[in-house]
Amino acid sequence: MKARITVTLKNGVLDPQGKAIEHALSGLGFDGVGQVRQGKVFDIELAGTDKAKAEADLKAMCDKLLANTVIENYSVTLT
Amino acid sequence: MKARITVTLKNGVLDPQGKAIEHALSGLGFDGVGQVRQGKVFDIELAGTDKAKAEADLKAMCDKLLANTVIENYSVTLT
Repeated sequence: MKARITVTLKNGVLDPQGKAIEHALSGLGFDGVGQVRQGKVFDIELAGTDKAKAEADLKAMCDKLLANTVIENYSVTLT
Repeated sequence: MKARITVTLKNGVLDPQGKAIEHALSGLGFDGVGQVRQGKVFDIELAGTDKAKAEADLKAMCDKLLANTVIENYSVTLT
């Protein structure tokens, strides 16, 4: 089974990397670019076919390792 | 208009960060974790309502700044 975990900064958390990208894009001549926020994505291969167990495992992985839940949100998608 | 750009490493490109996550997950006791690959996600706000222009702009942003197309793939989603 394959899963994709997307980790993004919560609203209100400063994102200097996103700001830098915003400035770089307008420097390159792209108009109309508003806020840019950068996040992370993890593509994970999992053994087994139990979707419910896989989702529970993936959420535990996010809580324990992949996301800092104080400042980040995560979403899990099984594909 | 909001857009999400996902940038992932191409198949065959080494991903030491993903490997490190794999080892950390098995160290935390998660069994059955296969390959892990890490990528980046950019959430971009765009002015205007022309979807075709927005998609063309976003692809140009990826080619020029956000992705290294030698080793990375990107996908663009308008939301």
